[in-house]
Amino acid sequence: MPSPTTNIPEKTIERLSEYRRTLLSCLNQGITHIFSHVLAGMHGITAVQVRRDLMLIGFSSDTKKGYDVKTLIEFINNILDSDNIMNVAIIGMGHLGQAITNYFNGKRRKLRIVTAFDIDPTKVDSVINEIPCFHMDRFEEIVEQMDVSIVIISSPTRVAPSLVLPIINAGIKGVLNFTSAPLSFPQGIVSENYDITTILEKVAYFVKENEERENN
Amino acid sequence: MPSPTTNIPEKTIERLSEYRRTLLSCLNQGITHIFSHVLAGMHGITAVQVRRDLMLIGFSSDTKKGYDVKTLIEFINNILDSDNIMNVAIIGMGHLGQAITNYFNGKRRKLRIVTAFDIDPTKVDSVINEIPCFHMDRFEEIVEQMDVSIVIISSPTRVAPSLVLPIINAGIKGVLNFTSAPLSFPQGIVSENYDITTILEKVAYFVKENEERENN
Repeated sequence: MPSPTTNIPEKTIERLSEYRRTLLSCLNQGITHIFSHVLAGMHGITAVQVRRDLMLIGFSSDTKKGYDVKTLIEFINNILDSDNIMNVAIIGMGHLGQAITNYFNGKRRKLRIVTAFDIDPTKVDSVINEIPCFHMDRFEEIVEQMDVSIVIISSPTRVAPSLVLPIINAGIKGVLNFTSAPLSFPQGIVSENYDITTILEKVAYFVKENEERENN
Repeated sequence: MPSPTTNIPEKTIERLSEYRRTLLSCLNQGITHIFSHVLAGMHGITAVQVRRDLMLIGFSSDTKKGYDVKTLIEFINNILDSDNIMNVAIIGMGHLGQAITNYFNGKRRKLRIVTAFDIDPTKVDSVINEIPCFHMDRFEEIVEQMDVSIVIISSPTRVAPSLVLPIINAGIKGVLNFTSAPLSFPQGIVSENYDITTILEKVAYFVKENEERENN
């Protein structure tokens, strides 16, 4: 990611998702309109960036009161949400894999976790959180059978590099990798390496900054 | 976040953490120098943005071969990593809480998870993944005793709003919230609402885009 021919840049998609979360929270607080500079301020970016992102998706209904929050949310929904359901599989049904399935079940209509893989004999061929779990040896077969297009890697980090080839061979289209091993996939496979450490580091950085400011 | 008086914007900090991850991966592949536009391309942003971010942290040693990867990593380390150890507590020792502790133990020298809280009688007053787990009723007392400055919320979403007041009262400085309920804290408390759904949505979006391109 990003694919060079994608019209909307990856970072814009990420920001749209973040804007939507903020807008939903505004709506819950009864805020019906928001100015671009206010939305920008909530995300630590410039109003120009917000307006550019919204221009990229063709949203231009700015009024004297700012953007209509509800309309903008619906507009972003149309961009981000797929028309068809996509099937997702989890590789690694340890604590993280189970947390993700618990978290996801029923949350998104267009994305659903349909199966899981592990090598632990206590998990293989059992049903965990209503998700059938198979041995990794059967990965290609089950992916085809269940029409899986996206995998989430929540295996131990040391295992992650060995998953690249099976994922390519099975024709997977998108990978979300939560391990600490950054993985590379050929063009045509969307992949995201996501390291929870990054966010905790960010929070820690700003706590440190606040403390230093208070002490000066 | 961000605090208005912080010199380095939140998004820059996030990008620095992402640059560092990419640079470490480059280094592992034997790449010693990288141009700003190459680094930019890997993150779907402009070279101007990369140069601005690095200018903000005072890094200017661009050469004809591009940035020296190792020097830049060390420079980012100095910005992001704290001098002092910060103590972190987890609220909610379900699958996600346990995944995070497993994941973190020993990973960062300057950030350590020292304690956890739950209300489940099978977890309270036990040691899970080498982390002592206390009843949420004792939150303030233990936070003070263990000098905790950051909390990670991995409780069920419905519980999250009720945690805001105890967190404020205990003098916590930073909050990383993994539930789906966005939480607001007063200025002076760094908080990050992080919804795993966002990334899965992003991957799904780009898979959808790729498929549409292939079909056209």
